[in-house]
Order: sequence, then structure tokens, then C-alpha cells
Amino acid sequence: MSPAPSGSLPSLDLLCIGNAIVDVVAPVAEDFLAAHGMTKGVMQLIDAAAAETLYAAMPPGIESSGGSAANTAAVAAGLGARVGFLGKVAADQLGTVFRHDIVAAGVRYPTAPLAAGAPTARCLILVTPDGQRTMNTFLGASVIFSEADLDDDLIKAAKTLYLEGFLFDPAPAQAAFRAAASRARAAGNKVALSLSDPFCVARHRDAFLALLPTIDILFANEAEITSLFETEDFDRAAAAARKAVPLAVLTRSERGSLIVQGAEQAMVPAAPAEVVDTTGAGDAYAAGFLTGYSQGRGLAASGWLGSRAAAAVIGHYGARPRLDLASLAQASH
Amino acid sequence: MSPAPSGSLPSLDLLCIGNAIVDVVAPVAEDFLAAHGMTKGVMQLIDAAAAETLYAAMPPGIESSGGSAANTAAVAAGLGARVGFLGKVAADQLGTVFRHDIVAAGVRYPTAPLAAGAPTARCLILVTPDGQRTMNTFLGASVIFSEADLDDDLIKAAKTLYLEGFLFDPAPAQAAFRAAASRARAAGNKVALSLSDPFCVARHRDAFLALLPTIDILFANEAEITSLFETEDFDRAAAAARKAVPLAVLTRSERGSLIVQGAEQAMVPAAPAEVVDTTGAGDAYAAGFLTGYSQGRGLAASGWLGSRAAAAVIGHYGARPRLDLASLAQASH
Repeated sequence: MSPAPSGSLPSLDLLCIGNAIVDVVAPVAEDFLAAHGMTKGVMQLIDAAAAETLYAAMPPGIESSGGSAANTAAVAAGLGARVGFLGKVAADQLGTVFRHDIVAAGVRYPTAPLAAGAPTARCLILVTPDGQRTMNTFLGASVIFSEADLDDDLIKAAKTLYLEGFLFDPAPAQAAFRAAASRARAAGNKVALSLSDPFCVARHRDAFLALLPTIDILFANEAEITSLFETEDFDRAAAAARKAVPLAVLTRSERGSLIVQGAEQAMVPAAPAEVVDTTGAGDAYAAGFLTGYSQGRGLAASGWLGSRAAAAVIGHYGARPRLDLASLAQASH
Repeated sequence: MSPAPSGSLPSLDLLCIGNAIVDVVAPVAEDFLAAHGMTKGVMQLIDAAAAETLYAAMPPGIESSGGSAANTAAVAAGLGARVGFLGKVAADQLGTVFRHDIVAAGVRYPTAPLAAGAPTARCLILVTPDGQRTMNTFLGASVIFSEADLDDDLIKAAKTLYLEGFLFDPAPAQAAFRAAASRARAAGNKVALSLSDPFCVARHRDAFLALLPTIDILFANEAEITSLFETEDFDRAAAAARKAVPLAVLTRSERGSLIVQGAEQAMVPAAPAEVVDTTGAGDAYAAGFLTGYSQGRGLAASGWLGSRAAAAVIGHYGARPRLDLASLAQASH
């Protein structure tokens, strides 16, 4: 099968909608997480005051653009896909950084910045010596993203609309999320959803389950898919995903990924990498998979491009690759 | 000899004064430099408009705190020295990042932010595939640093005052620089100067030469010391440095460093490292040398700690190390 509709080709392969966030990444010892009441590997939402307190306690960091769907957009563009992104920053220095980075990555980014009010969202990411990242997000201006920020031309033009589960946290964004999905389907395009985080799934399980019938491609890792279907057993969760959506892409860290599409399935290994910081690994995997899939590659080949894109980000601090991805996309044919 | 004066020990080993800058680092191909009229490996000053144009043309970057003397301060603190820093940021997001990072590194940083006017200084750093960095600095709020920002208690308390040559570019800072040096000497402390950049030396050669009689420790790389003494020949420049200052520390990239102190001298090899980005290598070397020297180590041992500190920053993008330096300081005894 080819995922592209016949007739006139749309001008975008992928439109991502998500929180527009700048990451602040710093290495910490294991006991830092416990001392600050964090659960390793998950994302928690924090308010401005908590963000200030945590930042003061953190070691020196590096800043780079983040946001789950925004990372996916940047990596997919680097792999040669035609990509757009929608998400809200403020008119401040970090907003300028976010806009620069995503535009410089080759992504169309039409969302107007928030003129006044909350600052640009930031995520304080603590990386333990095992490479695991624990995230603390101050949503800031991201909360203001609403239906008014949807770009109908881009939604119609994109073969696949990709939505991050984190968008369910800000209420106005959740409404925009549903509207975008509905408009994309009306235009005959696919809708992809990433579950983002097991705690995000727990916060919004009913809403996600209600949405599944309108989802064409579901991305989840092991913790997220088992949380969604409330089982401890991955195989059971995978079976439930197979019934719930036409295509489910389930990632399992160093064990690779399982891709299920009706009766068809593919098991894809992880690509070799030295683990420094796993921030953005899932986002990069989704970018690789969707880029391959939009080019008509099979499940296994698309998954392998996902594995290799993930490997390209986990060898350094930060969520986006620092190398030219074009060669990677070509080499994996 | 011991560099510490007898009697009551001062409470700081090192006080650094320099431009307070946030770096924006991005990898580029060789031809990007030529296309934008840059000379590889040097620092040029740019205004706000040029900074905006260049940033728009740059690939996605990562932000981290920089500034030559500030890098030296952060690395020396990581190595266990007691360190202060003076330099001007604005009251904006990048200023908050700069302050957080240097304080979190363990450095005392009392300078008040500029309330209104220019934004925090930034340096757009382009890293070519050979690991060389080419720097474009928009000085912003750094220009406002003046004698009013000198902290007399810290100047008196620090065994060594360390000044970056780049401070000669903003005129009010140059005046503060001279005043600080004079007060440090009056308190019986040492004054160290880093020449910073060959073009900075060319811009301010007469002023630097006039200042040398008041300098105890001079740091320079090969391009800077030959520029200062207007010779093509490194040995000739080193001989001139030996006469001009009590202690000259001359770095030569992968060829290591030559340290000359009157009749005494030490040749120190570079420490092995995979070169990703040389940003901050000279700053880290100075931190290692000064930390060792303040502990009463000999020239060669101090230089070797400098070499190892430099190696710790050139293996990744950014000017400051991402590892715990304490072990490094202990291991090199």
C-alpha cells in the first residue's frame, strides 16, 4: 500500500502540533531526583514558582529547542520530509530561539507569538548517569494555543497530522487538537497520535480512548501503551492496540519497536548507540518512521529509519540531532 | 615558590572579570564562513542588526553560558578553586541563564543586571567540521560594565585577578579593567591577563603593551603572542614575553603549551581528546593552570591540569565541561 492519496500530491508530508518548548538540560546524580520528589523518566507539569525553585537547584545547563512534536518536525525535515509545525511561544528571547531553530531546521512555522502574558514554555530536563531523562515542564505560553492558531491550509495540505499527547494538558490546546484531527480527516488525511508519557496517559486516559477511533497511526512506548490499556503485560497491550487503531507503532527502548497493522506486523531492532541522554529518542523515532512511511517504505524499513534517527539523538545532550540527517535517510534504503 | 602571600589567606583564589555572554553554537560547513565574510578561528564584534541577520542564516543551535573569563571562572570552580566573577548581563531571559549557570558552577557573582537598555550579550559561534570555532559577538549589556561594577572586597580577597583581553573592546570596561588591576596590585595580589584573540590584540596592541609592566601572569596562544610582538616567529615572541612579564603561559593547540618564568621554563603536552568543538579550550586551560598554581603546584603540573581541563571541553559542543571536574583535579597530583 502507499500512504499517499492518488491524484494531486499534497505539499506537506507532515504537520505536527504540540507544545512549543525550550529545553534546559543538565546532568544530575541519581539522588537529585529523589531529593526533589521526582519520578525518573516521566514528565511532570510545574508552575512558574516551582520552575524557579528547581532551576535554582539545578547544575549549569544547556538550552536547546524542544517540545515533543516540534522535535519530530525538526528531525523529519532533516530527513527530507516536507514538514510544518503549529505551537505557541511568547514574544521573548526563548521564543526567538525556538522559532529560529525550527525554521532553520526547514520546518514551516506560521504560529504567531503570544504578545504579552506568560513567557515561552520551558522544560527542565535532568539527565541521570544512565542517560534517562526526567522532565519538569512549565507550560507558559504553550497553554494559550487554541483553535484560533490552527492553520487550515497546512492541515489540508499535510498527508499526516501528528499530535502529541502532551497537548491534552493545556485545556484550550485539547480543543484545538480535536478540531485539527477532525479537519484533517475531513480533508482525507491521516491522523497520528503520540501518547507522550505514561502519566499523561493516566491523566487523560478516557479522553485518549474516546479519541482512538479517529486515529490512523498510534505511537506509544511500552509504559504508555500498558498505561492506556491498564495492563502490566506488553503483549496484551499490543493486541489491544492492534484492534483499536489501523496502525500502532510501539517502541521499547533498547529492545527496538513492534509495529502492528491489522494482520501484518514488524519487529525492528534498536540501532546501536552510546547512550548519553535519551531526551527526544521517541520523537526522533516517530520522525524517522513517518518520513519512511510517507515515502511508501514498508513497516520494517520505516521502523528502521526511526531506530536510526533515535540513535542519532541519544549520543549527546539535547533532543535534536547535530548531524546532517540527509545521508541517513538515503543510506537506509 | 608559593603564589599565596604569607599571613592571612585570602578567601578567593581567583577573581575573573570579563564579558558576560551567552553562546549560541551551531555546526556549519566550511563554505558558510566565506559566504558570510568571516575569518576562521577569530572573534569579530557585530552590532544588533548584523547579529539578527547572521542568526537567521545559522542552522539550529544550542545555547550555553560563555564569555572567556566567565568560562575560566566556571571551570576553575569545578576544579575546586574559590572563584568570583564580575561582568554585566541584562535583566532578561538570557541574563537569567548566564547568572544561573555561573552561580550553579560555584562562582560568586555579585554584579547587578542592567535594568533596561541593551539585551544580554550573545556570541554566535560557528563550528566547522575540523572543530574550529569562529565567533561573532554582539556585546549588548556587556558594554555597560564600568568601574561602578567593581567589587572592592572581592578584588582585595582574590589571590589572582584574571582579566580577559576582550574587555578592552567596550570602552567603559577598559577603564574598569585598569582600575581593577591597579587595586589588586595595591592589595598585594597578582594580576593575570589573557590576550583573548589575535584580532583583539591588533585592535589594542599599544594599550596591551603599555599594560604589560603591571601584569604578573600573561596567557596567550601562538597567534596572539606573535601578534602582540609583531613577529611571525613563535620562539622570538616567547623570548619577548619572557622579558616582558614574570610568568608567561603560551598555548599551542595540539602542540601543548610553553610556560616561561624568568630562567625557568616548562613544555607541557596537550591531553588526548577527540576534537568536536574547540570553543573554550583556552579558557579551560587557564582555569586548570591557575587552579594548580594557586595550590602551589609547579609550572609543569599546573600546565598539565590546564591541558586536561581543555581536553574536557573540546569533546563536545559548548565552552564548559559536562562532567565532574573534581576527580580530574585530584588525579593530576
